[in-house]
Amino acid sequence: MTDRNIRLESADKRAVEDQEVEIVERKGIGHPDSICDGIAESVSRALSNLYLDRVGKVLHYNTDETQLVAGTAAPAFGGGEVIEPIYLLIVGRATKEYDGQKIPVDSTALRAAREYLNENIPGLDVGTDIVVDVKLGEGSGDLQDVFGEETQQVPMANDTSFGVGHAPLTETEQIVLEAEYALNGARYGDDHPELGQDIKLMGKREGDVIDVTVAAAMVDSHIDDIDDYIEAVDNVREFVTDLATEYTDREVNVEVNTADDYEEGSIYLTTTGTSAEQGDDGSVGRGNRANGLITPNRPMSMEATSGKNPVNHIGKIYNLLSTHIAETVVAEVDGIRDLQVRLLSQIGRPIDEPHVADAKVITEEGVTIADIEDEVIATIDRELANVTDITRRTIEGELTTF
Amino acid sequence: MTDRNIRLESADKRAVEDQEVEIVERKGIGHPDSICDGIAESVSRALSNLYLDRVGKVLHYNTDETQLVAGTAAPAFGGGEVIEPIYLLIVGRATKEYDGQKIPVDSTALRAAREYLNENIPGLDVGTDIVVDVKLGEGSGDLQDVFGEETQQVPMANDTSFGVGHAPLTETEQIVLEAEYALNGARYGDDHPELGQDIKLMGKREGDVIDVTVAAAMVDSHIDDIDDYIEAVDNVREFVTDLATEYTDREVNVEVNTADDYEEGSIYLTTTGTSAEQGDDGSVGRGNRANGLITPNRPMSMEATSGKNPVNHIGKIYNLLSTHIAETVVAEVDGIRDLQVRLLSQIGRPIDEPHVADAKVITEEGVTIADIEDEVIATIDRELANVTDITRRTIEGELTTF
Amino acid sequence: MTDRNIRLESADKRAVEDQEVEIVERKGIGHPDSICDGIAESVSRALSNLYLDRVGKVLHYNTDETQLVAGTAAPAFGGGEVIEPIYLLIVGRATKEYDGQKIPVDSTALRAAREYLNENIPGLDVGTDIVVDVKLGEGSGDLQDVFGEETQQVPMANDTSFGVGHAPLTETEQIVLEAEYALNGARYGDDHPELGQDIKLMGKREGDVIDVTVAAAMVDSHIDDIDDYIEAVDNVREFVTDLATEYTDREVNVEVNTADDYEEGSIYLTTTGTSAEQGDDGSVGRGNRANGLITPNRPMSMEATSGKNPVNHIGKIYNLLSTHIAETVVAEVDGIRDLQVRLLSQIGRPIDEPHVADAKVITEEGVTIADIEDEVIATIDRELANVTDITRRTIEGELTTF
Amino acid sequence: MTDRNIRLESADKRAVEDQEVEIVERKGIGHPDSICDGIAESVSRALSNLYLDRVGKVLHYNTDETQLVAGTAAPAFGGGEVIEPIYLLIVGRATKEYDGQKIPVDSTALRAAREYLNENIPGLDVGTDIVVDVKLGEGSGDLQDVFGEETQQVPMANDTSFGVGHAPLTETEQIVLEAEYALNGARYGDDHPELGQDIKLMGKREGDVIDVTVAAAMVDSHIDDIDDYIEAVDNVREFVTDLATEYTDREVNVEVNTADDYEEGSIYLTTTGTSAEQGDDGSVGRGNRANGLITPNRPMSMEATSGKNPVNHIGKIYNLLSTHIAETVVAEVDGIRDLQVRLLSQIGRPIDEPHVADAKVITEEGVTIADIEDEVIATIDRELANVTDITRRTIEGELTTF
Repeated sequence: MTDRNIRLESADKRAVEDQEVEIVERKGIGHPDSICDGIAESVSRALSNLYLDRVGKVLHYNTDETQLVAGTAAPAFGGGEVIEPIYLLIVGRATKEYDGQKIPVDSTALRAAREYLNENIPGLDVGTDIVVDVKLGEGSGDLQDVFGEETQQVPMANDTSFGVGHAPLTETEQIVLEAEYALNGARYGDDHPELGQDIKLMGKREGDVIDVTVAAAMVDSHIDDIDDYIEAVDNVREFVTDLATEYTDREVNVEVNTADDYEEGSIYLTTTGTSAEQGDDGSVGRGNRANGLITPNRPMSMEATSGKNPVNHIGKIYNLLSTHIAETVVAEVDGIRDLQVRLLSQIGRPIDEPHVADAKVITEEGVTIADIEDEVIATIDRELANVTDITRRTIEGELTTF
Repeated sequence: MTDRNIRLESADKRAVEDQEVEIVERKGIGHPDSICDGIAESVSRALSNLYLDRVGKVLHYNTDETQLVAGTAAPAFGGGEVIEPIYLLIVGRATKEYDGQKIPVDSTALRAAREYLNENIPGLDVGTDIVVDVKLGEGSGDLQDVFGEETQQVPMANDTSFGVGHAPLTETEQIVLEAEYALNGARYGDDHPELGQDIKLMGKREGDVIDVTVAAAMVDSHIDDIDDYIEAVDNVREFVTDLATEYTDREVNVEVNTADDYEEGSIYLTTTGTSAEQGDDGSVGRGNRANGLITPNRPMSMEATSGKNPVNHIGKIYNLLSTHIAETVVAEVDGIRDLQVRLLSQIGRPIDEPHVADAKVITEEGVTIADIEDEVIATIDRELANVTDITRRTIEGELTTF
Repeated sequence: MTDRNIRLESADKRAVEDQEVEIVERKGIGHPDSICDGIAESVSRALSNLYLDRVGKVLHYNTDETQLVAGTAAPAFGGGEVIEPIYLLIVGRATKEYDGQKIPVDSTALRAAREYLNENIPGLDVGTDIVVDVKLGEGSGDLQDVFGEETQQVPMANDTSFGVGHAPLTETEQIVLEAEYALNGARYGDDHPELGQDIKLMGKREGDVIDVTVAAAMVDSHIDDIDDYIEAVDNVREFVTDLATEYTDREVNVEVNTADDYEEGSIYLTTTGTSAEQGDDGSVGRGNRANGLITPNRPMSMEATSGKNPVNHIGKIYNLLSTHIAETVVAEVDGIRDLQVRLLSQIGRPIDEPHVADAKVITEEGVTIADIEDEVIATIDRELANVTDITRRTIEGELTTF
Repeated sequence: MTDRNIRLESADKRAVEDQEVEIVERKGIGHPDSICDGIAESVSRALSNLYLDRVGKVLHYNTDETQLVAGTAAPAFGGGEVIEPIYLLIVGRATKEYDGQKIPVDSTALRAAREYLNENIPGLDVGTDIVVDVKLGEGSGDLQDVFGEETQQVPMANDTSFGVGHAPLTETEQIVLEAEYALNGARYGDDHPELGQDIKLMGKREGDVIDVTVAAAMVDSHIDDIDDYIEAVDNVREFVTDLATEYTDREVNVEVNTADDYEEGSIYLTTTGTSAEQGDDGSVGRGNRANGLITPNRPMSMEATSGKNPVNHIGKIYNLLSTHIAETVVAEVDGIRDLQVRLLSQIGRPIDEPHVADAKVITEEGVTIADIEDEVIATIDRELANVTDITRRTIEGELTTF
């Protein structure tokens, strides 16, 4: 064992899966807040790689403040158009000069944003449907260069912050998360270009009944008339209903675009696949937490993970790491029904030695905490020791932040 | 009784006050995120009043997306200066024309922001130290005019959303909240112009020891040298230490500006009283929740309350209302150690009839839920019936949102 | 004859060709001011065509205020990079809604700008090297729809304005103009990718000696070392020297990039082919007049022609028309050494009936004004009658404005 | 005599005063283009003084690119309001750091703009009616510090440029210029708050008849009804008509706000006193030349004088100097009916030694060039020697640039 301050105790409450009412939400990648998260994080990755490429280590930056101002659009069956473009401002701090060498952070940020949008929101014609601007200032001072090619030592915590992670996901959480992945991914999205990327799912479980409410932006150029639209909505409903059975035996009711009013012609039709085209602003850190979900039944961190520097921003690292630890423990240790891992940093101490690593567990029936304690603590200890893996995997794009 | 769906059940866990580890944070009014919250909400109030004044009812708007881009400054003992101004962009949606009448939403928003800054962050010379710009687009459609002089009926929920509130505050929560109020208020701030408005407090309780970490921006024009600075820091520490004894008998340790390094001349000195002058960006909804605190031990809503339309934005209303209900119940009903109230809306139903109002209570020793159930439910029912009071009080500035 | 108020008189001075000192300047298409002119005019054409396409007539707009804010770049032999992007703001007025139909003026303007840049300044990667933003407000009121498919009548002048044109060009003027066309065109540019589009030519004639000073931005990715650079400069000098002999028998001295200092390594090297990448801002109407030149020896109009509405902006129309008339008269009538045509509008009168059309002529030796008067006036009269041709040809991109 | 290359020759044409048709225009200080000129120049003065104050010499800057984007307003008898604010972007280059010292160029520019607006366009509430933003980049390189406290030597020309000045003003020019000064000054403006600062005067003389067309923005808070408006218009007409008699014996016809249509209620009423509030954009260098007028009968420079660095920008200096020289010569030497002075710089030579100083004179009847040649050349020579006076007087605000 190590001398890391790791605590394991009983959660002293029911697992979320067993609570009477559960609420779960996910904003899909095309939601205005998620667009901001995605750009902030892709800009972050691009800057990390730029610094590694140019000076061999990651310098100080944070790009966690992208702001999206909605446009206006005139969607129409068969294909409408954007009238006023979306305006997106990339905000943050970055080191622009190092050792006499100028570093193109602004143009790198713009390029990363454009590539992210082209890949993830293909309905947006960057430069016409959306104007991307950038304001990256110099930071508040001391350069940070802790994560370099030669220097792999563990950085010091520069703030008092905490992260919190959970595992396993409840059935409702899995349905909400996996449905969005599938709808926006190869399984459904590739064959259904009429479905935009702006999909919002709200899961509500009362006892053993799960209601899934989907708001899904349809893309007008693939929808010729109201019948097409109704078919598109029906397809989403059927798909999500089917998919849910892979994760639960409970009763599942799926509703799609409930605010539609066919009589009044009020439907969720867009030109670009995102509501950012008309009236819905967005910004970073307002949507999904680091595990991809908004889970009011569980403690959450307010920290905006996307866009933060993965080398030295303790809030980002601990949110990603606590989630990773919880998932790892649950994968490796049998008998856990619900696990929460919370990491609290201490200024000036190496980040692999948190002030406290605080795990609350609910065991399966017939399992006691004593049965699993050693194994859990050893796993947490090991993953804390590998904290810089989080940084590396974030830079390489293996970890999602929203 | 009514037919509102109100549930009361045992929280089935320890009160936060009785948990082993508790973390509480508050970003003071001069923190960049709080500046954005404050401006967003003052703009919201100004627009509500503008609409009431011009057309007798509140029209559709949301101004919950203010973005602040930090400036650069050169603070110096005796008085430094801002080099590059802060840039603040007010973002949102607002109805600009009604019944053929043009409504000056942009200039009203700018005026509200300026007045808010002049009153709350006096060290910022608006127009020189900070540039305030505005981008208010038209909303996504249908006008909302539910809250008028003649029409006091209860509006319908337009979204599935929820709010959550708690009462009473723990000792640690009270200390963190009240200390910031006092430091930035008449009790301390008025006599200590050297203390800036950007104060961040982190309270951490482990068992019966409370650590309060304060980061307090000092104002250079009132600090002539390092001795002045040290005295200013000492004064804050003493004040918070004293104040804490009003709220707890536990051991309290207060640290102020722990990142200072006097040897290296690295201290928290500012020209304007806020770190927004140098390197710290901000945006709405990233800081304090509606009760003024960030409380990772408690369920929180991700909803940005500040800037939302108080007439019809169900997330804003339910967050403010659930907090208000929890406080009211605890004030009126004896025997409650911890109460959480959660309100879940249902699209298309009047907002005084939530899908479920879900209260979880931890009673004092010797009190059973049965003892208080009728009284608690009656109180919740009454306050739900008065839901439009929340709107009115928000417009009149009686309720804070951050 | 008609009753148009056309006057022909002797210029009562020497022809510019015969004056002792003559100065002529042209800013090439890659100069920051010309970039703004070019975008303003391409946006104007795009809007004209958009309106014709959507509503069958050109509506009110003016887009003559593009502002370019220079970036920063780090050019280097073999290929450098842009560090901070250029910022370009398209400013103007446009009708955004007509007869209940929304018209996508903003996205059309952005598209036109992008296409213009891609075609004319290929070294600029739009969206990375240059951010293009747009602010098109509503105009000051009354819609203008005078130029439609069915209504080909002549519009009324809406302002008191004037235009002035000259012909023929002097030798120096021809050299300056044609050299830039050739350098940036198929004749030279296509085979010399090392030559950027930002070429500025100043021609100065004293007596019979013509000095041509060329400032030519070289493109670093095509220049591997200082020898390459020197060769590129030499090639431009030789080309312009040769070209000049096609237009004059006078002595011509050509200097290229005279501010270079090879010893100090100070040369005119760019990454993108325009000085806008580093330090040179630009805006509309600050450079070439409607005939493509700046000619301080001749009366000029201050009017910014580029971006103005070609249907009803009398300043634009009269500047283009007076130039066209002068050129036509000189082409058709023998014996003219120098002709200046000035058109002065009168508010409320059809634009083909100017308050005065005022021609000042200098005849060739042996020719009197009486010899040519009838023919000149008839030609002017005919071209005034065809005034709407100017509008049509401008919309179709046949006429250049800068 | 000196060895400066000064030439005096006959203008070889009629004086403008004697030409058949003369056109003169002046955009008053409240015209959108003039607002930009005024701010650009006040920012320039502020930066010059800032540099002198901080480092004892003027560093490199140019702030000649202010762009104004018009707002929208709803003027009304008795007082209307601004709906969407004017947006004004100060653009340029400035040295932000010198010898390790950071220099607050951005906040200084914002302050200068605000003070200029408060003083000159009092109807604009800065921060509400107009948003002022700033983008000052670093320049293209080499610092310029030629004009310091100790070093008063004459700088070298850094560009090939020219300036042109004229004297005396014709009667029409005097009327147009002096009328605007008086209307916007103590003589009329102080007692007539109903008259806005946006006054445009067009003078047209045909033979001995002078038509003066005035477009004058009226301020709605001082105009209660149409009768008030008509009276305000009448007062301006009478005042200008009277004033004209001080400068001419010719017939003068004054028209004010000729585009008004009382029947249709179309009048020139504003809330702020400038058409920038509704639909009229503006930028630097598009309006008056350095002598305050637009004079198509005379050669003009395209150079934007306002905002340029008065120490080393040869275009600015030579435009101001040539005007000053022409005025001085005419004031000191009798017998001159019309004088044009043109200065052409030569790169790398001291600016008091122009490549050529080229004066074209038209003498009074009975005076020959020989009679005045020595005196004229001596005066030009003396004023060239005093070239740095132009810089000093510009910095001190004694010289106007538009």
